[in-house]
Amino acid sequence: MELKKEKAVKQMNGTSQEYRNFPMVPRVVFGHGSFDQLGDILLPQRRHSEAPVIFLVDDVFEGTPLVQRIPSIFCDRIIFISALEEPTTEQVDALVHHIGEVFSEAPAGIVGIGGGTLLDLAKAVAIMLNNAGSAAKYQGWDLVHKKAVYHVGIPTISGTGAEVSRTTVLMGPERKLGINSDFTPFDQVVLDPELTRGVPKDQWFFTGMDCYIHCVESLNGTFLNAFSQSYGEKALELCTEVFMHDGSPDQKRDKLMMASWHGGMSIAYSQVGVAHALSYGLGFLLGVRHGLGNCLVFRHLAQFYPEGVALFEQMVEKHGIQFPQNVCAHLNDQEMDTMIQVAMGMTPLWENALGPKWRSKIGPEEIRAIYQKI
Amino acid sequence: MELKKEKAVKQMNGTSQEYRNFPMVPRVVFGHGSFDQLGDILLPQRRHSEAPVIFLVDDVFEGTPLVQRIPSIFCDRIIFISALEEPTTEQVDALVHHIGEVFSEAPAGIVGIGGGTLLDLAKAVAIMLNNAGSAAKYQGWDLVHKKAVYHVGIPTISGTGAEVSRTTVLMGPERKLGINSDFTPFDQVVLDPELTRGVPKDQWFFTGMDCYIHCVESLNGTFLNAFSQSYGEKALELCTEVFMHDGSPDQKRDKLMMASWHGGMSIAYSQVGVAHALSYGLGFLLGVRHGLGNCLVFRHLAQFYPEGVALFEQMVEKHGIQFPQNVCAHLNDQEMDTMIQVAMGMTPLWENALGPKWRSKIGPEEIRAIYQKI
Repeated sequence: MELKKEKAVKQMNGTSQEYRNFPMVPRVVFGHGSFDQLGDILLPQRRHSEAPVIFLVDDVFEGTPLVQRIPSIFCDRIIFISALEEPTTEQVDALVHHIGEVFSEAPAGIVGIGGGTLLDLAKAVAIMLNNAGSAAKYQGWDLVHKKAVYHVGIPTISGTGAEVSRTTVLMGPERKLGINSDFTPFDQVVLDPELTRGVPKDQWFFTGMDCYIHCVESLNGTFLNAFSQSYGEKALELCTEVFMHDGSPDQKRDKLMMASWHGGMSIAYSQVGVAHALSYGLGFLLGVRHGLGNCLVFRHLAQFYPEGVALFEQMVEKHGIQFPQNVCAHLNDQEMDTMIQVAMGMTPLWENALGPKWRSKIGPEEIRAIYQKI
Repeated sequence: MELKKEKAVKQMNGTSQEYRNFPMVPRVVFGHGSFDQLGDILLPQRRHSEAPVIFLVDDVFEGTPLVQRIPSIFCDRIIFISALEEPTTEQVDALVHHIGEVFSEAPAGIVGIGGGTLLDLAKAVAIMLNNAGSAAKYQGWDLVHKKAVYHVGIPTISGTGAEVSRTTVLMGPERKLGINSDFTPFDQVVLDPELTRGVPKDQWFFTGMDCYIHCVESLNGTFLNAFSQSYGEKALELCTEVFMHDGSPDQKRDKLMMASWHGGMSIAYSQVGVAHALSYGLGFLLGVRHGLGNCLVFRHLAQFYPEGVALFEQMVEKHGIQFPQNVCAHLNDQEMDTMIQVAMGMTPLWENALGPKWRSKIGPEEIRAIYQKI
């Protein structure tokens, strides 16, 4: 793949003169069973017994042995949260309010255990505990100015890249958009591939494809530089091995966890593109979850990503994945317009995909035509 | 490449029950000309005008335009250092002593600008400004207990991985060994491929091969897990592209800088192997520089790394690289024994390369036979 022009890189996310000084997750542990190191990891962060660690846990784990392994001591609290719906700014505000009501001391840490929804919630709650007002106020780029509470991310499904990214994507009153800031990334990530055992097949596929699709978008984008390219290529290669080649389930869990990690890193000097912009529209209006939404959209984007879509269709066939039909069929004109408006509002994504003159290359009618196929 | 047994991973660097909680460089900026962001990057670290930033700079840059671009203000100091010899604990002690004598205030930051030697010196000086005694006391694993002074790494040649590693390799009174600790990694790295313009061809090759060789060693080691494997494979692929394929000089500079970065990361849950162990012996006794030493040794390691050595020889031929001959010819028996002893002392490297029973697989006579070929 050709490296794109320097100029395009410099335009990334609106910075015109300089390159982003990218914040990386400063601590990571990888290994089968590494989840059991969490207690030791949290210990130095505990100030005293009144400052709780709050564990935000996907409620699919309620009553499972994993919960017994959570190192909850003193006044720590485990809060189970459903990931059936995308995380919202309202939910973040409610969690922050609840924590403030229940505890006299500020939390010593927030630990997210789950998929992209739980990881994004953990990041957002950690930020909002130290920043005033509603989370909706901070949706956008670099609007956070105070350090977040210490926060740990522990993925239990692979693909979103939320464990390593500098954003937390939330459904707000006006839009689905990330809180994209230097304070968003986790202070610590625990990568334990064992935790991804037992993920239902469809979810495994859709979430893995989130990684695959954002790598295709990143590698074909105008913002790309050699840093992001090297991570994106590795992630794409690992996805292809996992979804197209042979290998033991253990190896595939390991590889998909690393694909997600590298895929997330590839966004450092890059951006997602057309699929994510359209998927955000679907998510906002219909509540279609992110991984599935990306897949539904991506199938119809061969004009933008011909090779990526062709390989995607092979993966769909190999794994016998069935997609819901006529998802947008019942929408009225006004709803459709809203969805188009949300999608077209994702300026950095369109600029990455189609360059600064993207508005001359795609408009509401082309987007409507794509949505009508879904 | 097959993933090795979990057990071997757990034995890494003597930890028997848990996986290393790996410290990553928390901030990185990548881009052509990103060096010019250094002033802005340092600003928030400056406490007041009496606390200097010390720039340790490879003396090949003395009098070049790069020096004019160093954002030295207030009482900051630029210290030029020759990289013709490997860095020593004595040199670190002398620098720390000098800084203590000259400045009444502790430095606000240490910035290393150069290759592996300068980067390792910067890391070591930053550590030793906050830890008592000689640097030699801290050679080994996890002997540092106090946080280092804020330190920034800016590589001007690619391959060592020193910009991202958790060690700083020093020649000490008793051995060549790293200060391997959680406080060693840089707080900030600036990756500006422009700075690697003008590196002499031999040095470019030997230093690039440092990356290539440590990836071969890491990928063929018993400590490997999926995390390190994914980084090592990408680095090896980038090295192969740079040294074997076509491409513009600009692209190759970008790619080699990323190869070095990923190669350094691949050591997170891995180790180098036979070539580095033997090269450490050469370095200790003869002062042979690290990159060259690795190459001199690696050519004779086909029994351990058959594919790696074969491709290496193709690269040597393609670039018309000439090696010094009879490097070890003039050594007497006692000197040879010392060199063998230094090499055999690198236990974690041998364990990674040949497994826990490595002593049954290689001994002083086999090592002597290899050295005699060099």
